[in-house]
Amino acid sequence: MYDNPISHHSILASATPAYLGMLAEHFLNWLGTFGKQPGGGVTRLLYTREWMQAQHGLSQQMNNWGFDTHYDAVGNLFGRIHGSASPDQTILTGSHIDTVSNGGRYDGAYGIVAGMIAMHYLKEAFGSPKRSLEVVSLCEEEGSRFPITYWGSGHVTGFLTLDQAEGITDHDGIELLDAMKHAGFGNSDLSDVRTDIQTFIELHVEQGSVLEEGGYSIGIVEQIVGQKRYRIEVIGEANHAGTTPMHLRKDALLGANAMIYQLFRLIRQMDAPFVATVGRMELEPNISNVIPSKATFTVDIRHPDTEILNQFCMSMLQTFEQIAEDSQVGMNMNVWLDEPSVHMDPNMVQDIERICNEKGITNRRMPSGAGHDSKLFVPHCPTSLLFVPSHRGVSHSPLEYTSPDELGQGIQVLIQLLYKLGYEN
Amino acid sequence: MYDNPISHHSILASATPAYLGMLAEHFLNWLGTFGKQPGGGVTRLLYTREWMQAQHGLSQQMNNWGFDTHYDAVGNLFGRIHGSASPDQTILTGSHIDTVSNGGRYDGAYGIVAGMIAMHYLKEAFGSPKRSLEVVSLCEEEGSRFPITYWGSGHVTGFLTLDQAEGITDHDGIELLDAMKHAGFGNSDLSDVRTDIQTFIELHVEQGSVLEEGGYSIGIVEQIVGQKRYRIEVIGEANHAGTTPMHLRKDALLGANAMIYQLFRLIRQMDAPFVATVGRMELEPNISNVIPSKATFTVDIRHPDTEILNQFCMSMLQTFEQIAEDSQVGMNMNVWLDEPSVHMDPNMVQDIERICNEKGITNRRMPSGAGHDSKLFVPHCPTSLLFVPSHRGVSHSPLEYTSPDELGQGIQVLIQLLYKLGYEN
Repeated sequence: MYDNPISHHSILASATPAYLGMLAEHFLNWLGTFGKQPGGGVTRLLYTREWMQAQHGLSQQMNNWGFDTHYDAVGNLFGRIHGSASPDQTILTGSHIDTVSNGGRYDGAYGIVAGMIAMHYLKEAFGSPKRSLEVVSLCEEEGSRFPITYWGSGHVTGFLTLDQAEGITDHDGIELLDAMKHAGFGNSDLSDVRTDIQTFIELHVEQGSVLEEGGYSIGIVEQIVGQKRYRIEVIGEANHAGTTPMHLRKDALLGANAMIYQLFRLIRQMDAPFVATVGRMELEPNISNVIPSKATFTVDIRHPDTEILNQFCMSMLQTFEQIAEDSQVGMNMNVWLDEPSVHMDPNMVQDIERICNEKGITNRRMPSGAGHDSKLFVPHCPTSLLFVPSHRGVSHSPLEYTSPDELGQGIQVLIQLLYKLGYEN
Repeated sequence: MYDNPISHHSILASATPAYLGMLAEHFLNWLGTFGKQPGGGVTRLLYTREWMQAQHGLSQQMNNWGFDTHYDAVGNLFGRIHGSASPDQTILTGSHIDTVSNGGRYDGAYGIVAGMIAMHYLKEAFGSPKRSLEVVSLCEEEGSRFPITYWGSGHVTGFLTLDQAEGITDHDGIELLDAMKHAGFGNSDLSDVRTDIQTFIELHVEQGSVLEEGGYSIGIVEQIVGQKRYRIEVIGEANHAGTTPMHLRKDALLGANAMIYQLFRLIRQMDAPFVATVGRMELEPNISNVIPSKATFTVDIRHPDTEILNQFCMSMLQTFEQIAEDSQVGMNMNVWLDEPSVHMDPNMVQDIERICNEKGITNRRMPSGAGHDSKLFVPHCPTSLLFVPSHRGVSHSPLEYTSPDELGQGIQVLIQLLYKLGYEN
């Protein structure tokens, strides 16, 4: 499938991004047939038939390429090439196999396919590595079927245990642990926490348009941003839209509107990595000729620096309270998600930057605005997260797209990195 | 029930507001038993059993007081005292018998009860009037059961015909015309347009708190405001709340929020009678971590001067379009209600003002922010609309309240006015 090696560097140089990318696209299209939807999207929810068929399909392909495969207790699939010198030291790469409902073919799947191709290439080109190389198809990251995220990576890193899944059910009332057993897992009571992992590397599509807009091929993630999500409830008084003069109103929407306006004004004054989203809003009674008695909205705020994020949120809430007072409305506030930022391994960031520059691959350091499996690995071992461009930033949609060339450049970087970590002294 | 007359003026003076008000409250409580809800509210929807029982109850009471009663083709109930000199000239007063779902005891009902008490008093005190006096319990104003308003007053004034009700159904798919026939009406094919009406007077609760806040007993309506209702649709692009930098977003909520903010800023710069309400708002997909692709909101704007209202709305829409352009979002606009303001008879406004001042009843001229049956009579004959205070401005609620004294002062003014119109030369 590839030219045979003469020297390491010449061979590595012969793996053109175009070729690696075409191969990746082929496998992504094949993987996308498991759970394919009428409109071209993919729905592969944890422990469903489509999900199982996809995992078993991947397992077969890994076997075809000579990887030793095994599933752990929750259904994470591992494909391994044993190291010749230090087999107990494992370099792990991969991402997640599950999708959101009617998602795309790239999210998660790309990291698995890229890891498989990179390992296959390295094995063909250089034979056994010194340290073990392993690719993982993590069983779940999105939380689309059950209200729990990072179930796969949480299990590998010991962050989540089977106990924590007890009582968690899907929309049909099926328990997570029952669904797991029905899929053939969960019978081992051994802990699967992997203490042999030296490094984790995740390759993922950006899900934003920073790389495409800037003309970069690779994003080297320095941090996964911290994020807070609030639910703000503004309490006014319902009244007649025609007979209540403006100065006698307690208009919940008027208050909420002023809060959101000031939030966006504050955000515009801050650095670029700040993002704020009001994604959800509801009025009561929500009738065109009645002054709203209640307005509820969510605020999702993210920034790579937890300290700066916290400070911003404090001043945002002070502003909201002042507006509530001025508008004579009540306010209730609830933080329902509060996650600090997480830092990728700085030495690996430098190594990857060097690899990209040597290969002439345009790259930039950047934060990740979304959470990823690699977040769970950060406390566990040195961890890297790499992005390739998402066309128009489209994510969680059948329209997700990354060109074969871009897929290939990511794999090229992964090959170089796995070579450095697995084959060099 | 009342003292017999000696001279006109002494007798009119003996009708204390307290006594008239207690009588009105008694009848309103009785009327509120038809369609009484568990929480104290009243639901009396057009042509339902409760509605029919209420109309028949009123008819009996009118007969008890010696009025000639009849229903017209749609179920408006009239109670008449024939004029001795010019019986073909009719002075009509009244309001509507239907309620919103779980409404109060005063809205509409007060105008009917007040008219009955005033006519009864005048008959007892002064015998037959020169011109005919008539009280009407209009069958429908609110549009709560069928999506059509002013069905009763529209029929009397010729503004609505039976043809226009064809195909109109309630939530259960029952046709308006079928419900009407089932209630025993609609069998006459005669037009009921009343060309004999010289004057229409409607007494109503304010449904706002202008009178209470200002310490006035009577509001003399000069105009029913013009109103426009818009549905504004802001079109953005759904995207990931974490991975999409602020400057690359097309956030429909951000655009809609800026529009609403500017609308309220513009309103604050205008005169007091301007009112604007954003009562309804919906986001798509309405998920906390997804940038909204669509925000839809309503704008309800009212002002007594149609010209000023139109000018304001034009500049509001220009502002919205500018914001859409600046925010890189699309905008669709739809006016689904556009009613010019309607002016009450200016001579009658002066007459009523004089009556109030002579009686020492505090009063103010004011616009009505809500529509009323009297609006339909304005093109038909000289028309007056009078308000009594609504406690805390509460309207369309079981908590509607007007004190007996306030009810009585309204009736006192109505007696004076009916005397002037019906008994004097």
